[in-house]
Formats: sequence, structure tokens, C-alpha cells
Amino acid sequence: MAGPSDSIRRKHKVTVVGSCNWGTTVAKLVAENTKEHSDIFEEDVQMWVYEENVTIPSDSPHHAAVGDKPQKLTKVINTYHENVKYLPKIPLPSNVVANPSLVDAVKDSSILIFNLPHEFIGNVCKQIKGQILPYARGVSCIKGVTVTEDKVELICEYISESLGIYCGALSGANIANEIANELWCETTIAYNTPPCDRQGENGSNGTNGEHRDARGQISKTELTPLPQEYHPLDHAELQKLFDRPYFTVSMVSDVVGVSLAGALKNIVALACGFIEGHGWNMTAKTAVMRRGMLETIQFCQEFFPETIQEMTFFESAGWSDMIVSCTSARNWRYSKLAVERGVSLYEVERTELNGQKLQGISTTKEVMSFLKARGVQDKYPLFKAVEGIVDGTFEVKDIPVLFRQ
Amino acid sequence: MAGPSDSIRRKHKVTVVGSCNWGTTVAKLVAENTKEHSDIFEEDVQMWVYEENVTIPSDSPHHAAVGDKPQKLTKVINTYHENVKYLPKIPLPSNVVANPSLVDAVKDSSILIFNLPHEFIGNVCKQIKGQILPYARGVSCIKGVTVTEDKVELICEYISESLGIYCGALSGANIANEIANELWCETTIAYNTPPCDRQGENGSNGTNGEHRDARGQISKTELTPLPQEYHPLDHAELQKLFDRPYFTVSMVSDVVGVSLAGALKNIVALACGFIEGHGWNMTAKTAVMRRGMLETIQFCQEFFPETIQEMTFFESAGWSDMIVSCTSARNWRYSKLAVERGVSLYEVERTELNGQKLQGISTTKEVMSFLKARGVQDKYPLFKAVEGIVDGTFEVKDIPVLFRQ
Repeated sequence: MAGPSDSIRRKHKVTVVGSCNWGTTVAKLVAENTKEHSDIFEEDVQMWVYEENVTIPSDSPHHAAVGDKPQKLTKVINTYHENVKYLPKIPLPSNVVANPSLVDAVKDSSILIFNLPHEFIGNVCKQIKGQILPYARGVSCIKGVTVTEDKVELICEYISESLGIYCGALSGANIANEIANELWCETTIAYNTPPCDRQGENGSNGTNGEHRDARGQISKTELTPLPQEYHPLDHAELQKLFDRPYFTVSMVSDVVGVSLAGALKNIVALACGFIEGHGWNMTAKTAVMRRGMLETIQFCQEFFPETIQEMTFFESAGWSDMIVSCTSARNWRYSKLAVERGVSLYEVERTELNGQKLQGISTTKEVMSFLKARGVQDKYPLFKAVEGIVDGTFEVKDIPVLFRQ
Repeated sequence: MAGPSDSIRRKHKVTVVGSCNWGTTVAKLVAENTKEHSDIFEEDVQMWVYEENVTIPSDSPHHAAVGDKPQKLTKVINTYHENVKYLPKIPLPSNVVANPSLVDAVKDSSILIFNLPHEFIGNVCKQIKGQILPYARGVSCIKGVTVTEDKVELICEYISESLGIYCGALSGANIANEIANELWCETTIAYNTPPCDRQGENGSNGTNGEHRDARGQISKTELTPLPQEYHPLDHAELQKLFDRPYFTVSMVSDVVGVSLAGALKNIVALACGFIEGHGWNMTAKTAVMRRGMLETIQFCQEFFPETIQEMTFFESAGWSDMIVSCTSARNWRYSKLAVERGVSLYEVERTELNGQKLQGISTTKEVMSFLKARGVQDKYPLFKAVEGIVDGTFEVKDIPVLFRQ
């Protein structure tokens, strides 16, 4: 029997879990798209906002109405359609609905977009477990992976396993404020549509809930298939949800490659900062980026051989993100500063970052502990050198020696 | 019978054909290596210098000796060991021997390094044809290819065919003055050692002179094998000739990939200048670089499927050179300026370059005429858009549209 025709299919309800600078930006563009594709998506986009009191800045046109009286952030967003705290001066579509209740925000949503700082994801998953649709699907916009001596865990894998749903990853050479201002760039979404969500020609779902995880293994979690009454949810639909004239989306299936490229580039960005701080130029920096990319690919191929695809590194989440991170991002900037000043990166964290941590340092440490536990650290000379420089046991000037055959 | 032992093998004599900024830099580093590896190479490196009279600048320590009296450039180089005109203030090793006679400079040399502006290579080949050792081997440091409606010809192929010798290519993210100042960077040498030069375990040469050209076809030119009395000449020896602590060399066999990456990047550099001139940032630029790299690879795969290797584009001659060219080189700089000023690139050539031509424009035109002659120009939307912008038929603001699926 054929499935329901498109016009009577149930629409997807979308929730953005998080309302930071990047989360609000994604809510904006997604809400523009749900309006444009209201045949597939419910127009209103829920955005979970961690409630806090904010004062509307005096240079805001909304200041006159309330003065300096503290306001609830959700109320400000829903009234003035602006996240005055995390994405000021950017008008949001009125169908972005700020919701202070996490559980209420995710209720009945078949698409959950996770976009909040890495360190909050554990707690968020705990709170919404069992409160979401069993067949909800996720897209994680959180870069980074959790690496310990024992294992490498992708953020989207963590979400998948915590919640018992499938979750893909969005990553690319993206700067939230630029996208919020509709300056064009592109991104990559890795989403390996679960077989049970693939609707056959006769409208039936592909399989039962058995599926392979990001590493190509049969997952322990049996998925609840997306009910047939819904619009299908595959690359074409996700592209419609995220792609804007100023935000070009490429869809791939290699969740591991996209996630690891987004994490390991932080090690390379530190290396590039060291190189420039030492006085070398762009030509030397590109040599280090290149070597860093080769070690990233080697890492993926060594530990995730089942699913990795080399062409993933030609995506925005690969080379493009690498270039931007090594040219204008935080890890690069502060590692450059450390070498210029002749102090350690830890010293720079203390004096310049108010004790905040540089992601690159923890990524380097975690990845190296994982490699050392397997005795393969020498196969990753650049990653190893970055740890050595961070710890003061290797000198920046000796980086070229790593490249000699 | 085993071949001669290493100690009694004949050494390679090396000539650098050209003495421009980049040519003199290469002569410097090669001469440092012939001294260091004097078991394989004759120490003296011949450098052909187009003779001219020069005046030693008044701030030079050599000025006192001769004052403002014009001197022959070869005499200045051989006396003061400095190319005061094209690489001032860089001391050259005393075993760089400037020679005003092209024919004399190449005589008896088994290794010819071609390093002079593209437009002079035809005339140089004509002059030395028949005057070189029949088994000489070449390395071309000249970037660029000759593309017409009919065919794509690599510079090193042109040299091979004109002279009846084998010739490889050196290309990478290299800036001559940085290397001359021994600021570290890396490069790629593509050299597909002819089978007749490969010495078997018993010391015999591999085959007769039959060999495959850069495209993997049996070459029409039968090579004269390198005589067994010589030191072998393969990747290891070429690496010893070029690799310095400040200049890291990777050896590959994909001559086509290395040569075309070095040429097509000029089209992409124009695109990146347009993008930045329009006010987009690094994130947009990396999107264009990425798309440009994909079209470059597609071009190589479409027209040179026999020999192209995807990993070549991860070499210095691939991504690294692309990044540097799109960030700090001439094509990029002037295309950015054109958009900022709202004038055509031709206008910028006229007002800023004194009528000199931008390589990127001719590469774009030539490549597009080749693609159009085959009716496949629409498969290369970025290359096509660059031509359109140069000609005023496509607008920079519409570049993102090319990326929509």
C-alpha cells in the first residue's frame, strides 16, 4: 500500500536546544526555512533558552519601553524578536519561539538541533531522556569529541546513545556572527539516514530499527522508525531545513570524518599559532596545516576504517574549517601570542583568558593519551610536537625537523 | 655483473637554467646540497645568467670596490657571490658559477633545472637542443601549463618533448625571498623516474628507452638511458639535491597533478580576490578555495585519468600552494583591488601593473577555451564564473548561487 500523499503528511516540529550566539543564529536560519518550506516543517521553531534576567542595552531601540528594568530573556526574545544578550542587533523571525522549559521545548519535536556549549550536553540529555518523541532525530552543531585513554566518543554518538535516537552532525568553516549578518559561507551536515527511516517506493519503511552506528557497527540501540505519517527525513529535507542563500549546505554521510575534523583541527590551530609566533610566514603555516590534515586523516583511517571517506576532508568541515581555524580563531591567536611573548600557553590562559581554557590544549592532551595508550603516538609527530610545546619539552624551532624523511 | 660501486660512480653535474629571483634561490640551495653530497654531485653548480650590465647599489658592501661603474652581472655573481640584481643581500655559496653562455652552462650536465619565466622556455629549448647530454634529466620549477583549444601541455612535457629527455616538476607553496632567507617551508617534486633509469639489484638498467609520458601513454620519444657509470637518479637522489633544513621536499610521481594544481590555482586566486573585494570574509573565501580545488581535481580526472592521484592535492603543490596563492599572491591582490574599486581587472592591469599581464586571466581564458571546445564548461561553474566576472558578464555577488544544489 502506498504511503500518505505529501499534502497530508505530518509536518516535522523543530526544536533548537540552546540559544547561545551560534544556537540563536541557527534558530534564525532554520526558522526562515520552516516558513519557506511549511509543507514539510511546522513554522514555529522552539528554541530552548536557559532563563536569565537581562537588561536591554541603552542603545537598543527596545530600551525605551522598559528602561533598565531587568527582563526575562525569553520574554525579550518573544516580544522584540532579538536575543539581546547572545546575538544582539540581529532581528529574529517571529516564528522563533523562546521557551525556558527544556522539557516543554523538546516535547513532540521530531527534529532536535543541539547547539550549546559542549560541557552542558550531558546534563541536557539527562533532563530530556524519555521526554522526547522516541523517533525524534538529532543534528548536533557542537564541535568536539570526548577522547579518553579508552575511547573516542563523538558528541553526536553520545547524544544518540543517551537518548536512544539517531543524531547527525553539522560542522564547517562557520562564524556565527557572520552568518547572523547573512554574510555568505557554507557548511557540511553529516547524516547517515537510518535504514528504518528510508521509505521504499511503496511507501513502507526500509527495515526494523536495527541500524549501524557512526563506526559502521550494528548499534546496540534499536531505533524507533520515523512513522510513515511523517514527511520523510533524509538529506533533501535536512538541506531544506538548513540551507539559505547565505548558508550553503553540503550533505554527506561520514559522521566520523566530519566530527573528528572539527575536533582535531584545534591541535593544528595551536601548531599554526606557534609557527607564526616564531616568525615563520604563510608558506610555513600551510606546511603545518597540510601535515595536520594528513595526521587527522590517518587518525580517522586508523580508528574508524569502516566509515571514513577521504573526500570528507575536502568538505567545508574539512579543509575550509582547518584554514579558518588556523587563520583567525582562538586557539591560533593565543598560541601565537604565547610564542611571541616567550611564555607558556597556560600562562596566556591565566593572563589573557581569565582562567578560561583553550579547547586546543585539552583536545591535544586527550588525543595524545588515547594514542599513547595504544603505543602509536610516534606515528603522529605533529600532534606529539604540539603536546611537547604545550608542556615545554619540545621547541617550536624544531618543528621543521618533524617533516624530514 | 654488478654495476660500479658507489665510490667510483660518475657524479652528476648540475645546471640551473635561469637566474631570476626564484632561479638564483634554487641555485643557492642546490649548491649547498652538492657540497654536502659531493659523493653524488659535482660541487660546482652552473647557473645560466642572461648577461646584462648592472650597477652595484650604493648600500652594498661591494659598492666601494667598483663605485657606480656598470659591471657584468656574471662577473658580480662570481666575484661577490651575490646576485645584486635579482636576489640582493643574499650570500650565494661560492660553488654557484654564473655562466653567460647558455650552451656552455648546460654542457655535460646530467641534471638540468629549468627556472626562468614561462615565456622564455621555448627559445631556451631551441638553443640547447642537441647541445645537452642525450641522457640528461630535467626538473622544471616553472609553474603554469600551456592550454589551447586543442590541448593541455605541461611545461615539463614541453621540455621533455623539445629536448628528448625526461623532465619532472617542482611546485609548492614557495616564496623565493623567504626561502633565500632560509625561512622554512616545503615543496613537492613530481618525478616519475623513467624505467630505463631504474637500476635493478644486479646493477643493470631496467629497460630500453621506452617509457610512459606524464599522461601514462607510451611516449613517442625514446629515452637514452642514464649510463650505468653514473650514480642512480631517483627520488632519493633528487631529494638530496633539493631538500634543505629550511626547505622540506616531498617526492611524488604525479607530474600532471602537481603541474595542473600549480596552474589552475591562479583561476581560484582570482575568485578569492573577487570574494574578498566584495566584502565577504575568510569563511566565504575558503568555500571558494574548496570549490576551486574540487574543480581542479575534476579537471585532472577528466583529462588525465591514467595518472592522477587524489593524494597529490594534499601535497604542498596542492592545498598549501592554493592557500598561499589565495591569501597573499598577485592574482588575488589585484582581483580584490578591482572589485573594491568597481573596475575591471583589465583596468587594474593598465593602471597598477604598467600593462603587465596577470597570469590568472590568461589561465582562465585558456582553460575555458579548452573546456568550451569540448562542451563541458558547465561542469566547471567556478572557472566559468571567473571568466564571466573578468568579461563583465557575471556578477561577484552571484557566486554563492553557483554553490546551490
